Amino acid sequence: MQSFIDVQKDSHFPIQNLPFGVFSTAGKDSARVGVAIGDYIVDLSVLQSAGVLSGVSGLPAGVFDQPSLNAFMGLGKSVWSATRRSIQELLSKDEPRLRDDADLRQRGLIAQKDATMHLPITIGDYTDFYCSKEHATNVGIMFRGKDNALQSNWLHIPVGYHGRASSVVPSGTPIRRPCGQRLAGKDQPPVFSKCLKLDYELEMGWIVGTGNQLGSPISTAEAKDHIFGMVMLNDWSARDIQAWEYVPLGPFLGKNFGTTISNWVVTLDALEPFLVDGPSQNPTPLKYLQESSKTAYDINLEVSIKASPSAEFETITKSNIKYMYWSITQQLAHHTINGCNMRTGDLGGTGTLSGPTKESFGSLLELSWNGTQEIVLKDGTKRQFLEDGDEVNMTGYCQSSEGWRIGFGECVGKIEPALI
Amino acid sequence: MQSFIDVQKDSHFPIQNLPFGVFSTAGKDSARVGVAIGDYIVDLSVLQSAGVLSGVSGLPAGVFDQPSLNAFMGLGKSVWSATRRSIQELLSKDEPRLRDDADLRQRGLIAQKDATMHLPITIGDYTDFYCSKEHATNVGIMFRGKDNALQSNWLHIPVGYHGRASSVVPSGTPIRRPCGQRLAGKDQPPVFSKCLKLDYELEMGWIVGTGNQLGSPISTAEAKDHIFGMVMLNDWSARDIQAWEYVPLGPFLGKNFGTTISNWVVTLDALEPFLVDGPSQNPTPLKYLQESSKTAYDINLEVSIKASPSAEFETITKSNIKYMYWSITQQLAHHTINGCNMRTGDLGGTGTLSGPTKESFGSLLELSWNGTQEIVLKDGTKRQFLEDGDEVNMTGYCQSSEGWRIGFGECVGKIEPALI
Ligand SMILES: [Ca+2]
Ligand SMILES: [Ca+2]
Ligand SMILES: [Mg+2]
Ligand SMILES: [Mg+2]
Ligand code: NI
Repeated sequence: MQSFIDVQKDSHFPIQNLPFGVFSTAGKDSARVGVAIGDYIVDLSVLQSAGVLSGVSGLPAGVFDQPSLNAFMGLGKSVWSATRRSIQELLSKDEPRLRDDADLRQRGLIAQKDATMHLPITIGDYTDFYCSKEHATNVGIMFRGKDNALQSNWLHIPVGYHGRASSVVPSGTPIRRPCGQRLAGKDQPPVFSKCLKLDYELEMGWIVGTGNQLGSPISTAEAKDHIFGMVMLNDWSARDIQAWEYVPLGPFLGKNFGTTISNWVVTLDALEPFLVDGPSQNPTPLKYLQESSKTAYDINLEVSIKASPSAEFETITKSNIKYMYWSITQQLAHHTINGCNMRTGDLGGTGTLSGPTKESFGSLLELSWNGTQEIVLKDGTKRQFLEDGDEVNMTGYCQSSEGWRIGFGECVGKIEPALI
Repeated sequence: MQSFIDVQKDSHFPIQNLPFGVFSTAGKDSARVGVAIGDYIVDLSVLQSAGVLSGVSGLPAGVFDQPSLNAFMGLGKSVWSATRRSIQELLSKDEPRLRDDADLRQRGLIAQKDATMHLPITIGDYTDFYCSKEHATNVGIMFRGKDNALQSNWLHIPVGYHGRASSVVPSGTPIRRPCGQRLAGKDQPPVFSKCLKLDYELEMGWIVGTGNQLGSPISTAEAKDHIFGMVMLNDWSARDIQAWEYVPLGPFLGKNFGTTISNWVVTLDALEPFLVDGPSQNPTPLKYLQESSKTAYDINLEVSIKASPSAEFETITKSNIKYMYWSITQQLAHHTINGCNMRTGDLGGTGTLSGPTKESFGSLLELSWNGTQEIVLKDGTKRQFLEDGDEVNMTGYCQSSEGWRIGFGECVGKIEPALI
């Protein structure tokens, strides 16, 4: 499959991808829905008005003229898939409707550099899981020693906790270093200070397209049809605030000052060719968590950092979500097994996606082994945790054997100094 | 102050209260905003259309013709107060505008028995705190023994965690007994089952009227003007699911299957006469948590249960929020000290409001001492935890020296059998 629009070989956005996002432009400042292709955005509100999406049934007028994907996502899996197929057809090399209509091309294709991207979804609730065995083991060894690394429930439950929806921000939003209580030393009272152990967490997010009624669980088999797509997710973390506050009710102010997601939502349809077997699960999960088909994805993940005052990003982590122990469909099934209701736009985070080797560790906590080791960058800059002015980028892509990539674009944030 | 509308002496809704809620009627099924007085609801959308609220500046047309209080709450404290004063004046004995207008009375006053109440707010995020020292101590003794009852951070931090907004339901919504993983015995693998330790938690909720920008904290001094009002809140809890899942990231499926709030939001203005000094705080809190005026409220709280198949509710707990260690304004200041942003409609729960004596314990976990003791009701029915068909009601009221009460109405839910 090829488009009449030029797409570079290593682009994240070939015609095989078509991720959804929300954007505005100087010419029209109301935010609306588009899909990315190459260096362009296809304005779906324009395409729909022009009638070229009329082959898709169940698409109400104006559904793309909205500042979030929620109205579209609420229409359900068959409409998502039909819409994406229709756009794919419209953009393909041999299809003249858009290719040969200079006026429609001019109105409907916007250069990405001329657009402002917005948070693509209106998030009702955000839940963060803890589903990488390698990450949980690393953290466990650091804080409880090798013999008690994994908690007793970890191999039975996709452990998760509720996060904060209000502070989920789109890629590019600056993150202010938080203040709070931390321990200054053993047996000393806590002090108020700026965070001294500011960190990132390499995660991916999954977005609920259609939810369930309170009291009615979603099974693992159904889960895939409820998930619209995935994003990159950086769960910024204040390790010193978190360490003092989290017993016994979990992370709170150590997490809720900001969570960055990528601007483009890659659909599960686009990721389908990259399904693989996940790690084998032993002990066998309880029945409601069992799955009979492939539910892991082979997505290469990278974290890069532009450590102030460096001029360039440097890759410090390469990982892959295929290592994740509990699949995203197991996460959703577990989340609803007690009847908890999901709504269109709800966001799930996978937890830090560390792999088996040190170069695949997804947080500075792990790379610096809680500040006991230094990470030395190419220009000699050293880091244990993030400093003011540092920028962090996370990205991911699937590599096809034909050469094209299904990618997520960037998920970037820069640390601003604390208020004190 | 007295109204031309008859209000019984022990009513929760005299003219001194005027709590806000959202309701619909058979005659007009679109939900809209009203205030309660005696056995009536004043339809504010009708009053505003009739022009009798025109003395309030800053009130946009249609602001009460909405299915939630959020649009009104977003207008800010001075508008909330002016609106309530204006309604109070309109309802007072000597004011003829509504009293003598039979047509307006007929359209604007609805009997509560003829209305359906709805969730009064659209909740962005819900956070549950853990601010009763008595409750935290009881739970601590049960699970860690007397010497380690309070965790080391408890006297320094209003401990809290993120809850689930989607499953907050209005009073009267049935609650289905959840299923999930629990331990069947020590050193045995977990089993999938229905919850065997279903409980309630007597809490109050505070509702954010106006929020803050990400990165900009709300101080304790400012906090009161950001809070619109309070509700009763039942944090239904599955103790067996919670016990197995909660380490290390906190409560999740043990809580998020349902949280009930009362239908009427009592404003902080109405509660103002009942401000009292809270417990003295030792050690002195860090500066950002210090307060210089009264911030506790004297609100009598009651839990009653109609244990299936009993025909009547029986009061099993009498408590008071004045015992709460950390005030609601300290909770809000703490929540934002790291820059976390609050939005109009966000909900904070206080945590279980147990008092110093056994008759004031706010959960069955405490009353039955984790199932080791039986609660014997008047008709001989025994309970350790909730059984199918049980109904729980929570209420609260301030008692004035003149005899009237500022009350919260009911906060009721009935347990439905599990799906298995
Ligand atoms: Ca995380
Ligand atoms: Ca609670
Ligand atoms: Mg975060
Ligand atoms: Mg609850
Ligand atoms: Ni939430």
